[in-house]
Parts: sequence; structure tokens; C-alpha cells
Amino acid sequence: MEEIPKNHPRYDSLKIREKLSNAVINGITHHTGLIAHGRGEAFDYILGEKTNKYTYEAEKISAAALLLADDPVVSINGNVAALNPGDCINLSNEIPAKLEINLFHRSNERVNKIYVELKKNGADKIYGLKADANISFLDHNRGLCDKDGIFSSDVVLVPLEDGDRCQALRKMGKKVIAIDLNPLSRTAREADISIIDNVIRAIPNITYWVEKYRNFDRDALKEMVDNWNNNLMLKNICTYISKRLNSMF
Amino acid sequence: MEEIPKNHPRYDSLKIREKLSNAVINGITHHTGLIAHGRGEAFDYILGEKTNKYTYEAEKISAAALLLADDPVVSINGNVAALNPGDCINLSNEIPAKLEINLFHRSNERVNKIYVELKKNGADKIYGLKADANISFLDHNRGLCDKDGIFSSDVVLVPLEDGDRCQALRKMGKKVIAIDLNPLSRTAREADISIIDNVIRAIPNITYWVEKYRNFDRDALKEMVDNWNNNLMLKNICTYISKRLNSMF
Repeated sequence: MEEIPKNHPRYDSLKIREKLSNAVINGITHHTGLIAHGRGEAFDYILGEKTNKYTYEAEKISAAALLLADDPVVSINGNVAALNPGDCINLSNEIPAKLEINLFHRSNERVNKIYVELKKNGADKIYGLKADANISFLDHNRGLCDKDGIFSSDVVLVPLEDGDRCQALRKMGKKVIAIDLNPLSRTAREADISIIDNVIRAIPNITYWVEKYRNFDRDALKEMVDNWNNNLMLKNICTYISKRLNSMF
Repeated sequence: MEEIPKNHPRYDSLKIREKLSNAVINGITHHTGLIAHGRGEAFDYILGEKTNKYTYEAEKISAAALLLADDPVVSINGNVAALNPGDCINLSNEIPAKLEINLFHRSNERVNKIYVELKKNGADKIYGLKADANISFLDHNRGLCDKDGIFSSDVVLVPLEDGDRCQALRKMGKKVIAIDLNPLSRTAREADISIIDNVIRAIPNITYWVEKYRNFDRDALKEMVDNWNNNLMLKNICTYISKRLNSMF
């Protein structure tokens, strides 16, 4: 692969594409993960490739919800494993939360490759290999999860999740925090807290607030989480995008 | 590849992804075509995954322009070859127009594979294999085209085109009809007629109007094409998107 010149105006974006492309070649990311990434790119572009104030608020609330959880899990898929596995491990250590490999296009080979990648990045215990339970309401391989991982968790952080799975997790009574750049996606609408941000910015932002909030009064955190209006945040983001689009032409 | 559950609410979209994914494996579509598809998906989502009235008008005008052309060409790239080669062949027969394989990431191997795919779908003569001319203003492989194909054409339909090439074709004095779901892209802004639609809907729509307009008075068609205001259409679509985003929450 030819080298990307450092002065290229789209250097960061091209480096990320290169990372994902390599991860597809190495069997960590599924082909269709590139399509998902392209979708994200489009929304990120429309959003100005930075965290807006509404999303920043969602990231704060997510940190609070993760700290309040009895048994939180950070779910890892093929794109996140390629993009910023270290950040995810760091977040799971800081909360602390379990780390579970959970794939839409699941294959043992890919699970094992991601396992090795996470280990290489310093992960300790990793869930998702046993796959001895099923997310209720879902047939198909995409429902597989660990009984003592996602299955029994109360709060799950799902970066780049499928809409169906997001809905199924909620039906199981879990609090779902989703990272998805598309504010209109089923995932974004279904989740309890939707983070309309690039995972590369979102995970470190949540981690920052986990550290800040660690010793906060739990009742105060609970009040913040209880008062969160996800729908209003999505509405605000749509208005924000809408204004941006009108100003771009 | 595992089967996509038929009851998945995004079944159609997932099937299309699968088609592209397979085309990458089979060497018809380039890796980066998947990321480009994802970007398109995002805009299609925002547009409601249907043809809006401004785009429908652009498709009518495109049909008129193709019927009026002396030497029209329908350009085929790796994504279109994977998604709806049959529709493109049908359109080129109906106009009639030449069919030319024209790739951004050009390799003889990929050209040959697309050639076989088009033949399998019933194409008669296919241009783009000789590559004995260059789109002016472009160095690099992406400029290669056939002397008696795109090079000498007067109207070119380019589905999913690169902004640079769209601009270069226009500089050569050709009328460019581009299909691109991103109304903000350089391609959409550079083309004479921009079709902000999914190729899967766009190609059959244009074909429908080619059939309708075939026996229309040529002066009437010419007047329609001459009066087309592409910039106004793009502005209308941005307003349309903007309103849609505001009304969705």
C-alpha cells in the first residue's frame, strides 16, 4: 500500500481507511464493516468531524450510567477492534466493565483474531468466546453472547451496533448506550443513550468523564441519567445538521 | 457467507451490501468501493431511500439529453457492475448508447472480470478494453478510456463518479450526467445534470423516460434540457433534506 503524505488535507481520514482496509485483509474486520465505516464517514463529514455540544452531553451521561451499573459490558466488534482497541480496553479498566467480543457476522476465526488483537493491546479477561447464551428475540448467529457477559449485564456500551440487536438488548431490560454517527438510525432511536460521534473521539471522551465522575455523589449521577432525554438530543442534532447543510450550499 | 434473515427490517439494504461484498471477493469491485457505497447509503438514508420530485425531474431531463446525443456513452464502474449491470445494459440498448468499462482503480484483471460479468448479463459490444486514449487533464490510470468510446462521445452517463474525472470530462466539452447520492460532492456540483439517487432506482427511472420520450418532438426535448438549472435542483434537494431532518423528530 502506498504511503499517505502527511500534508494531505484528508490525512487522518485516509489513515483510518488504511487501518480498516488492513484489518479486513487480516480478518479482524468484516468486509461489510467498510460499508458501515463509509456511512459513518458521510455523517461525520456532515457533522463537521468534531464532537458537538449535544453529543458531548451524551458522553457525560454515558460515563455516569456506566459508573452506576452493577454489571456493565463494553462490547467489541470488528471495526472497533481495528480502530481503537486500546481506548476500549482503557475505558473498560477505568469503569471497570467487562469486555466482550460480540459480532454481527460471527465466525470463530474472527472472534479468535480479535481476541489476539485485544490481548496484544493489553486486555486482561475477554468475554465472548464461550457464546453459551443468546440475546433473546434474536435467532441467528448475531444473537450469540456469553452468559456471564452481555447476557447477564445491566448496562451495555455498543459501539457501531445493529438496530435489531440494540432493540433486542433493550427488550431484555438492559440499558443500552450506542455509538452511531447516524442520528436517524434505528440504533440511535432505540438506544437509551445515543452517542452521535466517531468512536475514535467518543471512547476517550467517555473515559475522561468516567475519571471525572468516579467520586461523584451517586444520587447526583443517577438524577443526571434519569433526566436524560435522548429524543430531544437527537432532535437537537438533526437541527444542527440541518442548519449546517443549508449553510454549505 | 451466512444467510441474512429475511425478517430483518434492513433486509434489502443488507442484501445489497452482500452483493457488493461478494463482488469485492470476486475482484469486480475495489475495496474502497465499499466505503464509497457506505457514504452513499448514508445520504440515501437521509433522503428517505426513495426518489424525490427534484431528482425525478433530473432523471427525465437525463433521458432527454441521452436521446438527443449524437454519441452517448453509459460508463460502468466496479460498483455498478456489482449492483445492477442488467439495468445498465438495458438502458444502453434503449437509448441506444455505447457501454464502456471505466475504472478509477484500473487494472486489466478487473476490467476483464467486469467484461465477463457484462457479457453474462447479455451485453453486446463493450468498450473500455482498448484504453487507447486519455481523458484530458488527467494523468494516472484513472484517465484511460477508449478513443471510439468515452473519448469521442458527446454525452456521458457516469454512475458514482470521481469528482476529478467529472470535472475533466466537462473540460473536454462533454455533457456529463452523474449519479451521486451526495448533493454536496464535487461530482454533483460539477456535472451538467446530477441525479441525487441510488443507481438501483436511477437507472430504471431514466430508462422509463427514454421509452416515454423516444418519439417526442426533438425541439421540445432540447428546450427541456436547455432550461435545466442543475444548481437550483441541488439547492432544492438540500432544503428538502434539511426539512426532512427537522421533521423526523
